[in-house]
Amino acid sequence: MISIIHAYLTNNTAKIRRFTAPDEVPFFPQNLPEPILPPIKYAKVLAKYHKEINVNDKIKELYIKKVVPMVAAAPGEQEENWGSCATCDIDTLQALSRRIHFGKFVAESKFQSDPETFIKLIKARDAQGIDKAITNEAVEKTVLERLRLKAETYGKDPTLKWSQRAQSTIDVDNVVSIYKDIVIPLTKVVEVDYLLRRLEDWQE
Amino acid sequence: MISIIHAYLTNNTAKIRRFTAPDEVPFFPQNLPEPILPPIKYAKVLAKYHKEINVNDKIKELYIKKVVPMVAAAPGEQEENWGSCATCDIDTLQALSRRIHFGKFVAESKFQSDPETFIKLIKARDAQGIDKAITNEAVEKTVLERLRLKAETYGKDPTLKWSQRAQSTIDVDNVVSIYKDIVIPLTKVVEVDYLLRRLEDWQE
Repeated sequence: MISIIHAYLTNNTAKIRRFTAPDEVPFFPQNLPEPILPPIKYAKVLAKYHKEINVNDKIKELYIKKVVPMVAAAPGEQEENWGSCATCDIDTLQALSRRIHFGKFVAESKFQSDPETFIKLIKARDAQGIDKAITNEAVEKTVLERLRLKAETYGKDPTLKWSQRAQSTIDVDNVVSIYKDIVIPLTKVVEVDYLLRRLEDWQE
Repeated sequence: MISIIHAYLTNNTAKIRRFTAPDEVPFFPQNLPEPILPPIKYAKVLAKYHKEINVNDKIKELYIKKVVPMVAAAPGEQEENWGSCATCDIDTLQALSRRIHFGKFVAESKFQSDPETFIKLIKARDAQGIDKAITNEAVEKTVLERLRLKAETYGKDPTLKWSQRAQSTIDVDNVVSIYKDIVIPLTKVVEVDYLLRRLEDWQE
């Protein structure tokens, strides 16, 4: 049921041309309705095949298997929450998807800054080499530290600072783990997938 | 144009039975589509006419006249932002509406705690007397102080604490003023409107 509502609500933002934007990736690309708004001419930043780089199936799978059990109050469906639950799911899934597919922009920028290295790796179909070339462990560590501070800050009510009540409404370790184990690895999958095809839209 | 998108997107949440909930109030009550989900039986808390207490027209007017100029970057429409702008407008308007119409629940609770006083005021059609009976200036002051602290905390990036960059992404005074000049007064309008009709659903 939740899945039907998903498709329904996602298609509605498609009608206001959400998925014509290069930073928005649909979960149901096979049946997107026509936008009711006139098209926008976006500057060409990404390679022409960028819409085909789509790991949303994987995001949805990990969201259902890993994220929901971390944040759901109890297992099982609560029928009266179907509507609001599906609305939150969509907001979360599309936010995760947007963040993870930013990997395309990151990959493009890395490619532009050193085409020679990447062209060599791409021609050798060296996915592992590309993965290594795009990985910066120091940056990843800093991202996770900033994320923890943000989750700690935004996840509690500052007016309850001195109260006896539980202060944090979210589990900060879970937030960090979602980033560390899902967002960062999938972003790298997007980067590698994008780069492996980069010569399809490249003139030497 | 924005207005057409509003109606369109709002009606879509109606389809997942949003406005059957007693705490959700539609901006377009005259043409709500039928929900695609089965109905929920809510416990009766509010008087039977509660759906008719609806100040959304006033909320929309103040939102356009007062709130948008406070938060918009520049006057005029930016065509390419119609879609995402309308989506944010709807989220904001429905959140304001929900918060302001909580006045119904507040009013019901105040009525239940002292029916005698309120019945006298209602029979005398004494709107001003009702307004006085529901006002607690000390509480309003505390609400605004808590709001300011929340806006200060959530409105900035905690990881930029020691940086030279502007720290707050929102104008905290504007947030407080939206609450003080729009949310609190309209909540009281809802309370008074609700209480003035309270004897329509009351057996002595």
